Amino acid sequence: MAIYLDNAATTFPKPPAVWQAMEHFMKNIGASAGRGGYRRALAAEEIVFQCRRLLGKLFNINDATRIVFATNATEAINLVLKGWLNPGDHVITTAMEHNAVWRCLKTLEKERGISITVVPCREDGELLLSELDAAFHEETRLLACTHASNVTGTVMPVQAITAAAHRHGVPVLLDTAQTAGAYPIDVQELDIDFLAFTGHKGLLGPMGTGGLYIRPGFDLRPLKEGGTGSVSRLEYMPEGLPDRFEAGTLNVVGIAGLKAAVEYILNQGISRIRSHEEFLTARILAGLEELPAVIVYGPRETARKVGVVSFNIKELAPEEVAYALDESHEIMVRVGLHCAPLAHKTLGTLERGTVRASVSYFNTTEEIDAFLTAVKEIVELTS
Amino acid sequence: MAIYLDNAATTFPKPPAVWQAMEHFMKNIGASAGRGGYRRALAAEEIVFQCRRLLGKLFNINDATRIVFATNATEAINLVLKGWLNPGDHVITTAMEHNAVWRCLKTLEKERGISITVVPCREDGELLLSELDAAFHEETRLLACTHASNVTGTVMPVQAITAAAHRHGVPVLLDTAQTAGAYPIDVQELDIDFLAFTGHKGLLGPMGTGGLYIRPGFDLRPLKEGGTGSVSRLEYMPEGLPDRFEAGTLNVVGIAGLKAAVEYILNQGISRIRSHEEFLTARILAGLEELPAVIVYGPRETARKVGVVSFNIKELAPEEVAYALDESHEIMVRVGLHCAPLAHKTLGTLERGTVRASVSYFNTTEEIDAFLTAVKEIVELTS
Repeated sequence: MAIYLDNAATTFPKPPAVWQAMEHFMKNIGASAGRGGYRRALAAEEIVFQCRRLLGKLFNINDATRIVFATNATEAINLVLKGWLNPGDHVITTAMEHNAVWRCLKTLEKERGISITVVPCREDGELLLSELDAAFHEETRLLACTHASNVTGTVMPVQAITAAAHRHGVPVLLDTAQTAGAYPIDVQELDIDFLAFTGHKGLLGPMGTGGLYIRPGFDLRPLKEGGTGSVSRLEYMPEGLPDRFEAGTLNVVGIAGLKAAVEYILNQGISRIRSHEEFLTARILAGLEELPAVIVYGPRETARKVGVVSFNIKELAPEEVAYALDESHEIMVRVGLHCAPLAHKTLGTLERGTVRASVSYFNTTEEIDAFLTAVKEIVELTS
Repeated sequence: MAIYLDNAATTFPKPPAVWQAMEHFMKNIGASAGRGGYRRALAAEEIVFQCRRLLGKLFNINDATRIVFATNATEAINLVLKGWLNPGDHVITTAMEHNAVWRCLKTLEKERGISITVVPCREDGELLLSELDAAFHEETRLLACTHASNVTGTVMPVQAITAAAHRHGVPVLLDTAQTAGAYPIDVQELDIDFLAFTGHKGLLGPMGTGGLYIRPGFDLRPLKEGGTGSVSRLEYMPEGLPDRFEAGTLNVVGIAGLKAAVEYILNQGISRIRSHEEFLTARILAGLEELPAVIVYGPRETARKVGVVSFNIKELAPEEVAYALDESHEIMVRVGLHCAPLAHKTLGTLERGTVRASVSYFNTTEEIDAFLTAVKEIVELTS
C-alpha cells in the first residue's frame, strides 16, 4: 500500500467532506458568487461567506471580510510585497524563507529599488533573535517571515518577532504555508498584520485556494484589477474588502472544498491535529536517529517544529533515496531544494539538497514504521 | 424545472467528465505537479501537460508550453497589461470592454502614466473600424480588445484589428472570456499575440482555471514570483515558459477538470457547439422581437454575435424582471452592468443596466421557449 509523506507540498488524502462539497457544488449549484441575484448565485455567495467566517474562527480574526481569497499562498505574499512596498523601502526577512518570499523580494530589489536585510539563522533553522533588533532602520517598512520552514519544519518565534517589529513601528507578514491548519495560529495573540495562507496543505482543502488576512488600517494596492460584481461603474477597484482584492470570478468550487476542510479541522480541533503530527514527527526523528548513516537537519525537539523532516543518507544522492523509496516501497517523499535555496544555504545543503518526509493528520504509526524500515533497508543495501 | 441562462457568467451544467476527472484527481492522485519525482506527482504533471496540449490543439497553437495557467481571464489580462506596458506607453482599446481590461488600464494610467485611446463602437457594439487607424501613434505599444462583448455578444472584427495593429507594429491582446470554447479561435489565422482565456465559461471547465497564450518572441514581466519547482537556486523567476509565469502550486484539480472539458469540446467540435448556440440565440432574438415592450441591445444577426442577449422591458427595472423570472419561473439570468460600464455607455444603458440571458451548449429549445413565455407573461402582467 502506497504511503504518502509529501504533505508539505500538498496534503493527501483530504477529508471525504471536501470532495463531497466540491461535487455538490459542481452538480447542484455551479453559479458564480457575488454576481447574480438568483437563488443559486446566492447559494454560491453563502459558501464563500461561510468559508471566510470559518477561517476567521480558526485564526481568531474578528472581521472575516478582511480575509481575501487568492490562488495560493504565493499570490497572497506577492499581494503584500507588491501592494505595500515602495521604492526606497527596506524589508527584513529571515535566512529560512521559501522562494515565494525570496524571489519576490529579489525582483522588487531590482525593479523597485527596495533593500533587504536577511536575519541569519542557526544551522537548525532557529532565528538568531539577538540579531533582529539591529536590522531595523528608518526605511524599514515590513518584516516578512515564514511561520515554519518547509525544509526543516523549524517554527519561528513569532511573538518575539512581532513584538520587535512593532516596537519599531513595522508591520509583519507571516507566511503560514506550513502551519495553517496544522499548528495553532491566533492572529490577535501573535499580533500579525498580514497573514498569508494556502488552502491545500495543512488546511486540507483543494489546490487553487488560499488567501490573505489584512489587519484593519492597512491598505494595499491590488495585485489585479477587474470585475468584482460590485460598484461596476467605478473605473478603479472598489475600496471595500474583500472585493478590492478579488478581481474576476472566484474559484468557488475550490472554496466550497476549503469550507468543508476548515469545518473538519474545527471539529477535530487544532490541538488534536497538532498532537498527532507531533507524535508522528517524534517517531520519525527517533527512528532516523538510530541510523548512524542518516544526517537529520533541523531541530530535534518536536515542540520547535512542524511535521517536516529533512535528511540525507551518507554519500547517497537524495534523488537515489527517493527513487528507492518510491520504486521499492511505494513511499512518496520529496527531494531537492524544496523551492527554498536560502534555507539550504543556512543548513549547508545548497549543493546537495535533502530528502524531505512530511506528515499530515491522516498518516498512521504503521506508515511511519514502514517508512523507517524502508530507510533502514536502503542504508543497509548501500553500506 | 430550473432553467439556467447565466452562462456568460459561468456555464452550468458541465459535462459529467469534468467532475469525474476532478473526483479522480481528488481521490486517487492528489499530488502537486512539477514538484515531486514519485509516480503520483508525475501523473499530476501529465494532467497539466495534457491540458496545455489540448488547449493548444483547440486554439491552433503549435508550442503549448507558451500557454500559461492563471486563476481566471482577469489574471491573464493583468499579466499582459502589467507585464508589458511601461511608463509613457500608449494603449488602444474599444468602447465595449469589460472591467478586467478597463479597470486595469485606468489604474496603469494613474500609477504608471500610460495613456489610453478608446476606439468608439456603434450602439450595437460594432467597432467603428474606420476610426481605428487614427488611434495609433508612436508610443502605441498594445491593442487590447475583447473578442465578444459580455453584454451584447457582439463579436469584434479581430482579423481587421490585428492587421491594422500589426501594420503599426503593435501587438494585440485578445480577451476571449466570452468566446473560448464556444466560438472558433485560431491563433494563427487571427494572428493573435496574447490570448487570455477563462476555463469556466465556454470551455466548460471549473472555476479557478484560465490562462494566457504568449506568442514566441514576446517577453512579459511576471505578475507573481515564487516557487516553480524548477531551477530553485535562481533568485529570480526562471526564463523558460510556462514556469516563468506559474509561481506557487497550480490548481491541478481544476486543471484536471479543464482537461476533460477541452477533450469534450474537441470531441463535439466547435462548429457543432457554435451552431447550437447560434440557433438558440436566434430563437431568443426572434421571440423577444415579437414583444413590442421589449428593447433588445446588440446586433440582430446571430452571425455577428455569441449567445448573449441583453434586453429591457419598457419601464421595468431590470432587477424586477430578473426577480420575477427567478421567483415565478426558476429562470436564472443576470442583471445590472455586468462589470462592463464602458459597454453600457456605448449602448446608452449606463444608468439602468440590462437583463442578460446567455446560453450554453446544454440549453435546449424547450428551455428557450419557456424563457420566452415567461418574459411574455411579465410583459402582460405589467402592461
